[in-house]
Amino acid sequence: MSYLLYYWPTIQGRGEFVRLALEDAGAEYVDVARKNADGMGIDALLEVMHSADSTRPPFAPPFLRDGDVLVAQTANILFYLAKQLALGPEDEAQRLWVHQLDLTIADFVVEIHDTHHPIGGGYYYEEQMPEADRRSRVFLKERLPKFLGYFERVLRNNRSSDGALSNQRICTADLGLFQVIAGLRYAFPVAMAEADKRYPRLIALHDAVALRPNIAAYLRSERRIPFNENGIFRHYPALDAIAR
Amino acid sequence: MSYLLYYWPTIQGRGEFVRLALEDAGAEYVDVARKNADGMGIDALLEVMHSADSTRPPFAPPFLRDGDVLVAQTANILFYLAKQLALGPEDEAQRLWVHQLDLTIADFVVEIHDTHHPIGGGYYYEEQMPEADRRSRVFLKERLPKFLGYFERVLRNNRSSDGALSNQRICTADLGLFQVIAGLRYAFPVAMAEADKRYPRLIALHDAVALRPNIAAYLRSERRIPFNENGIFRHYPALDAIAR
Repeated sequence: MSYLLYYWPTIQGRGEFVRLALEDAGAEYVDVARKNADGMGIDALLEVMHSADSTRPPFAPPFLRDGDVLVAQTANILFYLAKQLALGPEDEAQRLWVHQLDLTIADFVVEIHDTHHPIGGGYYYEEQMPEADRRSRVFLKERLPKFLGYFERVLRNNRSSDGALSNQRICTADLGLFQVIAGLRYAFPVAMAEADKRYPRLIALHDAVALRPNIAAYLRSERRIPFNENGIFRHYPALDAIAR
Repeated sequence: MSYLLYYWPTIQGRGEFVRLALEDAGAEYVDVARKNADGMGIDALLEVMHSADSTRPPFAPPFLRDGDVLVAQTANILFYLAKQLALGPEDEAQRLWVHQLDLTIADFVVEIHDTHHPIGGGYYYEEQMPEADRRSRVFLKERLPKFLGYFERVLRNNRSSDGALSNQRICTADLGLFQVIAGLRYAFPVAMAEADKRYPRLIALHDAVALRPNIAAYLRSERRIPFNENGIFRHYPALDAIAR
């Protein structure tokens, strides 16, 4: 039976980390809110979220239905899927380490999002531009190098022949780092201009993931929603120009 | 052998969620950065973080050492400890559900922190007061009721005889919700004044956790660092007054 993925239909957002895992593994899934059919669409997503008597309601998308199981929180979904889809290590300690990386990626994603929304999602970017400018300065100067430097160090100390996080099977954190690098290059081309020199292992990992057959096919397909200015990674030249 | 907990020594912060789990279970642990002894103190914490050749370095505290195992990310530590300390359910699907709640609590904690630090940790609160005022308005009006309303609904739909999340053993999310309610009452007494009417199950859960013998003893001890204006939950009357 297919997995049912519930996520906003017009952005990559946090749902993309789940899509990449499903796509890389060649899993069958339905991207529910993007389907135009009975029991599908955004109403189906909202119905699961707001069901008054649900004992395990998700707080927010993305969430995944697998038969009777309903799992939410991006990193939790990845932890669940990794076992099901044989992504990454099987050993319990190694699984928790990959999960730890996925959680650190999730923290990074919050900070990336908040560069354009430091006051909150209740306002448009255009209503919080001075604050976004200030937050982006701190982000590009301190936080971006801290996170990318950390992941570069992790890759250096976990050297594998193919540039991924381990010599074992590809893991969800490899896919997540691909997505983060792709998104940052879209959002901050100026700030990321020299990334290949500063973070060579991260860029090599990004490139290796992009060449994996299932991922390459996915990126060329219509299933991959283009980056846009409604998602997490937004290209606002004024914020990126701070890096000059 | 004792667990070694590494966290900043003068605040509750994210480390408190781990301390509460260890304390409730009566586990032996050393709060490394608070100890004044050889191989202890804040230098010991920094050494683990910055060890150049560590294959599994933590990105940030808290982290926990259990023999050869080093685990970071608060919710990941709780997931690990829950199994070890027999906190919460044993069933795998139930464990993931509790973990999902812990991750949602972690998201909430980020937003609580950012009320006083919307621009970033690189500046003092006093350097970002106008932005903090604006962010706190959105937080108190939209985000606080959304998160608390969600957890209240979860409790309502998972009714147990003792007010906790399940009739089984107490879980890390019960302890986490206790900490969040205690912290919010400290930081936002005005905004939380009617919480017992709006969120009766959450307040009952808080009260029930506070009465558990090991937790009650801990809260009276010197091991419980008082809330203060360096942690996540800070009482700035100007931000709370927005709720009037």
